[in-house]
Amino acid sequence: MTHAPQHHTPDFVGRHIGPSDDDVSAMLKLIGQASMGGLVEQAIPGLIRATAALDLQAAESEPAVIAELRAKADRNTVLRSMIGLGYYGTHTPPVVRRNILENPAWYTAYTPYQPEISQGRLEALLNFQTVVSDLTGLPTAGASLLDESTAVAEAMTLMRRGSKAAKDAVLLVDAQVMPQSIAVTQTRAVPLGIDIVVADLTGVADEAALTAAADGRAVFGVVVQYPGADGAIHDWSGLAQAAHAAGALVTAAADLLALTLLTSPASWGADIAVGTTQRFGVPMGFGGPHAGYMSVRAGLERTMPGRLVGVSVDVDGAPAYRLALQTREQHIRREKATSNICTAQVLLAVMASMYAVWHGPDGLSRIARETHAKAVALHDSLHAAGIETTTEHYFDTLTAIVPGRADAVVEAAVEHGVNIWRVDADHVSLSVDETTTADDLHAVASAFGVNIPEPQDGEPTWPAELRRTDDFLTHPVFHSHHSETAMLRYLRALSDRDYALDRGMIPLGSCTMKLNATTEMESVTWPEFANLHPFAPADQTVGIRELITDLEQWLCDITGYDSVSLQPNAGSQGELAGLLAIHAYHQANGDSDRNICLIPASAHGTNAASAVMAGLKVIVVKTAPTGEVDMEDLKQKIKEHGESLAAIMVTYPSTHGVFEDTITDLCSLVHEAGGQVYVDGANLNALVGLAQPGTFGGDVSHLNLHKTFCIPHGGGGPGVGPVAVRAHLAPYLPNHPFSEEAGPQTGVGPISAAPFGSASILPISWAYVRLMGGAGLTQATETAILSANYIATRLRKHFPVLYAGENGLVAHECILDLRGLTKESGVTVDDVAKRLIDYGFHAPTMSFPVAGTLMVEPTESEDLGEIDRFCEAMIAIRGEIQQVIDGKVDVADSVLRHAPHTAISLTTEWDHPYTRAEAAYPSGVDPLRKYWAPVRRIDGAYGDRNLVCSCPSPEAYDES
Amino acid sequence: MTHAPQHHTPDFVGRHIGPSDDDVSAMLKLIGQASMGGLVEQAIPGLIRATAALDLQAAESEPAVIAELRAKADRNTVLRSMIGLGYYGTHTPPVVRRNILENPAWYTAYTPYQPEISQGRLEALLNFQTVVSDLTGLPTAGASLLDESTAVAEAMTLMRRGSKAAKDAVLLVDAQVMPQSIAVTQTRAVPLGIDIVVADLTGVADEAALTAAADGRAVFGVVVQYPGADGAIHDWSGLAQAAHAAGALVTAAADLLALTLLTSPASWGADIAVGTTQRFGVPMGFGGPHAGYMSVRAGLERTMPGRLVGVSVDVDGAPAYRLALQTREQHIRREKATSNICTAQVLLAVMASMYAVWHGPDGLSRIARETHAKAVALHDSLHAAGIETTTEHYFDTLTAIVPGRADAVVEAAVEHGVNIWRVDADHVSLSVDETTTADDLHAVASAFGVNIPEPQDGEPTWPAELRRTDDFLTHPVFHSHHSETAMLRYLRALSDRDYALDRGMIPLGSCTMKLNATTEMESVTWPEFANLHPFAPADQTVGIRELITDLEQWLCDITGYDSVSLQPNAGSQGELAGLLAIHAYHQANGDSDRNICLIPASAHGTNAASAVMAGLKVIVVKTAPTGEVDMEDLKQKIKEHGESLAAIMVTYPSTHGVFEDTITDLCSLVHEAGGQVYVDGANLNALVGLAQPGTFGGDVSHLNLHKTFCIPHGGGGPGVGPVAVRAHLAPYLPNHPFSEEAGPQTGVGPISAAPFGSASILPISWAYVRLMGGAGLTQATETAILSANYIATRLRKHFPVLYAGENGLVAHECILDLRGLTKESGVTVDDVAKRLIDYGFHAPTMSFPVAGTLMVEPTESEDLGEIDRFCEAMIAIRGEIQQVIDGKVDVADSVLRHAPHTAISLTTEWDHPYTRAEAAYPSGVDPLRKYWAPVRRIDGAYGDRNLVCSCPSPEAYDES
Repeated sequence: MTHAPQHHTPDFVGRHIGPSDDDVSAMLKLIGQASMGGLVEQAIPGLIRATAALDLQAAESEPAVIAELRAKADRNTVLRSMIGLGYYGTHTPPVVRRNILENPAWYTAYTPYQPEISQGRLEALLNFQTVVSDLTGLPTAGASLLDESTAVAEAMTLMRRGSKAAKDAVLLVDAQVMPQSIAVTQTRAVPLGIDIVVADLTGVADEAALTAAADGRAVFGVVVQYPGADGAIHDWSGLAQAAHAAGALVTAAADLLALTLLTSPASWGADIAVGTTQRFGVPMGFGGPHAGYMSVRAGLERTMPGRLVGVSVDVDGAPAYRLALQTREQHIRREKATSNICTAQVLLAVMASMYAVWHGPDGLSRIARETHAKAVALHDSLHAAGIETTTEHYFDTLTAIVPGRADAVVEAAVEHGVNIWRVDADHVSLSVDETTTADDLHAVASAFGVNIPEPQDGEPTWPAELRRTDDFLTHPVFHSHHSETAMLRYLRALSDRDYALDRGMIPLGSCTMKLNATTEMESVTWPEFANLHPFAPADQTVGIRELITDLEQWLCDITGYDSVSLQPNAGSQGELAGLLAIHAYHQANGDSDRNICLIPASAHGTNAASAVMAGLKVIVVKTAPTGEVDMEDLKQKIKEHGESLAAIMVTYPSTHGVFEDTITDLCSLVHEAGGQVYVDGANLNALVGLAQPGTFGGDVSHLNLHKTFCIPHGGGGPGVGPVAVRAHLAPYLPNHPFSEEAGPQTGVGPISAAPFGSASILPISWAYVRLMGGAGLTQATETAILSANYIATRLRKHFPVLYAGENGLVAHECILDLRGLTKESGVTVDDVAKRLIDYGFHAPTMSFPVAGTLMVEPTESEDLGEIDRFCEAMIAIRGEIQQVIDGKVDVADSVLRHAPHTAISLTTEWDHPYTRAEAAYPSGVDPLRKYWAPVRRIDGAYGDRNLVCSCPSPEAYDES
Repeated sequence: MTHAPQHHTPDFVGRHIGPSDDDVSAMLKLIGQASMGGLVEQAIPGLIRATAALDLQAAESEPAVIAELRAKADRNTVLRSMIGLGYYGTHTPPVVRRNILENPAWYTAYTPYQPEISQGRLEALLNFQTVVSDLTGLPTAGASLLDESTAVAEAMTLMRRGSKAAKDAVLLVDAQVMPQSIAVTQTRAVPLGIDIVVADLTGVADEAALTAAADGRAVFGVVVQYPGADGAIHDWSGLAQAAHAAGALVTAAADLLALTLLTSPASWGADIAVGTTQRFGVPMGFGGPHAGYMSVRAGLERTMPGRLVGVSVDVDGAPAYRLALQTREQHIRREKATSNICTAQVLLAVMASMYAVWHGPDGLSRIARETHAKAVALHDSLHAAGIETTTEHYFDTLTAIVPGRADAVVEAAVEHGVNIWRVDADHVSLSVDETTTADDLHAVASAFGVNIPEPQDGEPTWPAELRRTDDFLTHPVFHSHHSETAMLRYLRALSDRDYALDRGMIPLGSCTMKLNATTEMESVTWPEFANLHPFAPADQTVGIRELITDLEQWLCDITGYDSVSLQPNAGSQGELAGLLAIHAYHQANGDSDRNICLIPASAHGTNAASAVMAGLKVIVVKTAPTGEVDMEDLKQKIKEHGESLAAIMVTYPSTHGVFEDTITDLCSLVHEAGGQVYVDGANLNALVGLAQPGTFGGDVSHLNLHKTFCIPHGGGGPGVGPVAVRAHLAPYLPNHPFSEEAGPQTGVGPISAAPFGSASILPISWAYVRLMGGAGLTQATETAILSANYIATRLRKHFPVLYAGENGLVAHECILDLRGLTKESGVTVDDVAKRLIDYGFHAPTMSFPVAGTLMVEPTESEDLGEIDRFCEAMIAIRGEIQQVIDGKVDVADSVLRHAPHTAISLTTEWDHPYTRAEAAYPSGVDPLRKYWAPVRRIDGAYGDRNLVCSCPSPEAYDES
């Protein structure tokens, strides 16, 4: 009997990585490499290559990691939360949880940039926009923002752009705006040079009072909370009139559930509404992710930040959804951008929209009435016992006056199993919600030493003029799916229209669409993680904070940085946080003139947008013909800007998918000139275990946990964008007013609403690292590089591969250059991308970083069979292009230009030079796995000319 | 402020029931009824109608019911199980759990009787058959049986049929066959007059010894366990030779995991292999459900019980799967049937097959080796400490000799967190498995007071001639889906081929395809229910047994019976249990000649099959032209058989979907003649809350929890078939040797392997009753009746509705008579059923109970929109039939005969008299929700002539 120590080998690494050992050998052979080690040695410049193996805890098996997570979950204590402040208990409809949040068809989808294969989630997002628009009364709503606080900050800059007020005008914020929103907005205001004045605006009803409240300064925008943080409902119509008279715009941060019973912000004059949709079925999750929202009045829609879904038509004239007004977006506007938001909160917006679809307007109103009734019961019993409240008119939140007893009352509540909020030594506030039971009311009442009657449903208790009377959610979609069977089918039908990782490869360069393993996703819905309020006392959140600390440490170990903040809830926010740290660092050193940020021409558009938001001036560095940063131009720019140089932002490996061997020189040059080096972590999947930005010259990076660390893209969010810094920048990381543990006291302020950002999805990345260990993570990186080089080698004969490193190798992605073919044939990258749909693929990244190219990133999770299927599809398409070049087919009537082909299009008259079979079942397509696009190619411009951003009436679909 | 007590109304009833209040009004109007009460009064005969409202606990909301289940779960204690005896710990691959067990696309599917829309699960079942066939070495395996014990019982009757041994020959069973299997087989043998001899067969190697072991009697069959219940591995080749020489057949009850390392049963001469596939990724679940298996040598395949998937071709010649050799099945053979198995364990068979696909042969062998290594470590340390074992050669189970200390050791093990098995006062056995950790080994070793080394992987320790050397699972499917990404896509691709409730209505008469709500499904995968061993000590299973007691009581309350057993794990088993109770009752009364069972001509085929298995003789009672039982014929038959009358089996409402008003007379006549009335509960969904079989004349019923009580059909199982009896039959319910709580001491023995059958899915029905309450359940029944009558009314103008009650009303289903149209047009029910696929529907029940008809049951869960869509599709099809009748279209080239149309068929030459659009998008089909059949109409006969029942080689799919 031979004894080999193979007992309980964790085999997850082999499940995560697509190619088998045999496949790897075959792939190495094709690219002419003897071994993986040799490949890495040739691909990655020796100067930056890590010399030691990545030292992390050894990998564990899936059951063992689940057990570890279970143990962490058990170290959290979930009390009934009545803390409120924008986070409330909610019942996720089980059919929505199972069929969206736990369904890979929804959570593994990418952002809907290929609208023809994203119609399901685009419809869901259109529903979301309709919910927001209807409830706020403002005609145009976007497809989600990151959270309520960043939405307030976005509203600030939107108002600044929209107001003609003097340049030094201030933002006037009511004192009862959520404290975390004020703090986040303040963080954002500083680099933009905007002053914020916080004041009690309840009495303000004319221009003079407004100016007085603003300390005599001009005002460009006003923000109020509706209802206020203290729970109070005020009539803000006088304030709105005064603001408009003064040339200022008005933003209402409004609670959507309250709006089912309250007059809409539009009705009293708000120009903008913002808020969170968390309580529409999305668990609190210790802070997120949840979808923030924004809606605007007519005239502001074209300067609104974030994505906007609109209705257009396809080439057959069928209604079709796609992202509208895309030229507004940061990745196109770059240094002209007014916001850097990119990834949003699609999955959560979809959930919130489905909560509204599930309940309909009557159901939502009922929930609101029941919630209010509970608050009334509490209010009446407090008053009966002689405890006064500051809130005369309220929806769900009361602020009780307990002179000198606030701490004692909070403590008594905890003993009864309820968290309430200590406002100050003399006041506590408490919020009820959909999940509050009679027992909970009794428990909290006991903490005050009072009894409470059974709540009675009834009409709102606030003044009649603030009660809502107009209809909302009148569209049939909010009235058709109220049985679970109907809802289940609606969700299935929508997801069937979309192409996600559960169908095939999504080879998007720079997006790292890898496996989101079930075990990683598992704990997200556990109540011990899902039901924590972000401001819950620290002794109740021990487990989740341990997990956060672990993950921070591991990310330091992986990147070579010294400190990490997990607070930024998107890559864009991580970028901003990193640049704010650089800015603060220069300030602290007295280098207050350092305001130049160098950015290579090939950078992600977000880089420039973030730099602008951090108050920096963007100077572009040229790209050399070989695709690398033009080192001569860099030297020239450094020389030009000398003392003003704040930073350079580079992506590594570069956005061209190449390990540039000039990176160390580049870092040195910038450092010598007194600048800081920002290494964009978008391509970290090519580095983990092999090289560390924190040791090869970076001072700061943001990472994308939704790329390298397996958080699913969710159809366009959630993302998590931790910022990692070297020690000298650590004092300038984000912090949070309600959590000492969230960051340094010397920090730049909060960058997200919650202390730890989107905490509830951090277990995903935590599990990934635990399951892979250092060796597994390194093997994943190597395989990702191997697979990209395999594709480059197979396709180079058919399409020029645009850039490569010194040894002819690419990094983890490769750029296929179609420009020559386009010139020769007229076939565009768009044609190829849409034709790939017929072959059963999501397109690679189009025209980034070079117009007229496709950037392909297979990731380590695709197996060789799927990679070969992709290569063969591309080769077949090359053959179709050749037909055009050879003059055998007119491009205007080619199978490429008419792609994608829908099933129904096969039933029509057919006068194309190709057959139906060639259209729909080109070589390599397995008829049993055929993916059908639900619509044909979409006319984006039509939709922008005829902007429709909420659910169109059913008549719009009438074909007669 | 008005106060109405609407607070916290549980709104699940409105989610479960499809039609809204407005819809109900419209539907009542169409059928000419003023109110639901009026409808019920006219539909249900007054004599049987319940006079009081159904008195159950008030309904609760979904979160409240989850909380109650949580509390019950918390009252179970999950120790590490080393009890073994056919139930082992196993890791369900997370990707399989999430995407099959928790995915409605899999669990809400029906039995694959419509193979064109069931190709996904048919492929999964073919994989299952291949796994069983490969590992056992026997060429033909079925698509699952109910559990290992019933599989042994089925093997008994199969061997009896296959052996030419004398009529009074016995079944010879080795003493180490699982005790529960011996007990279940004994239960089944009694009514068939088969004697079982249990003996130690380890020494038997010639015919003389065989006869001696059988107490000198002839032997028709031999059963051995491989490895034995005690864990021992024996070479059974000598026994097999001896048995064959004596004209007997040999059955091996074999452990599939062990077979990866052990020589196959076929290799040493077994004719039949049976067993469980539980440890292939299916949680123990306190006993079930799991898939049992059976495979047979060539020559036995046509008499094998249960369903068999085979490969055939569609009309285009494409390979296609369907159920093979269906004429073997009980529903066709009726009183000639040799088994009554009907519902099997499809969902669990699919899971087990995917476990094998996921691990492949190498992975399974590795798991087996690691398991064995743990047993070796335990064995060696016991022996080192002087504790002997009875098991010289073993795989995963040891029987330790602990003279007089068995109870003490078991107790010590519990204290260390492990359950082991007390064999007798001097022996304990313990089994290790995939999930056993080093800590578990240390824990159990401590109970013996010994230390244990780290297990070392290695070769099997048993003799070389019993080590497996031949390959298995060589088909590519077991080598292609080993990364999670690949597996996820395989599962999605398979499920996309199938039509389940998540796509649309499955209006199958008699099958009650209603909502399987997420909240009901929720707790099935909770570890506290999923990880209990069925023979775990009672003090560890308090919560689940409370739940079982609740459910038994509620089923009594609902049916009017006095006692219920939940042990039968399918309707067929409930039937058998009910008939055995009747049989035992007559015996106890000295009426041993009562052996006649009257069955109406329209009965489910299973009724007759069960009666035969219960040792009864079936006499058919005619159906009157009105569809009712022919009362004159009944009287005649009663007169004829007088003293021999044992029982009548009737379905109520009848299989014709009618509330017969003769039911009370019928019961009286039978009772007066000394017979018992068996009311088949298949149609209970028309009675709940409105009438009770236990009070209107039934003595016994079986219920189908997978029909009326929301357990999903799982694509053909699991089912649960409780048997409910009046008090006089209660002493004869099933019981179990290992559980006093499972049934009366006077009972007929166990009918299933586990004391409470498929216990892990009982929370589904429990939750349904809690969520609905008495009023909700009654409303569901009323709505089901309303919807059936609505369909009958809408379609009567187009198709004759075959039967109706006195007031022209049907019950919860209606029969559309196509015979006239078929005569006129040549269009068959098959044509209509397949054409419905093109319209996006699963067909109604075909040709049951009347050939040439379709039986439609909408259930209460379908909303009016879907019901109308169905009616309109049927009306449109009627129009298509008219075209044929009018001579405009030849039926042979009609859109009906060519249905279903696949997408790829649209791309071929088109020379039909109808257009592609008419084929694929007939009126009412929403292009965005189009369901595409993956294959065209399947040629079943071809497949039966060319029987292929395991995965065909990939070349079989080569179209060139």
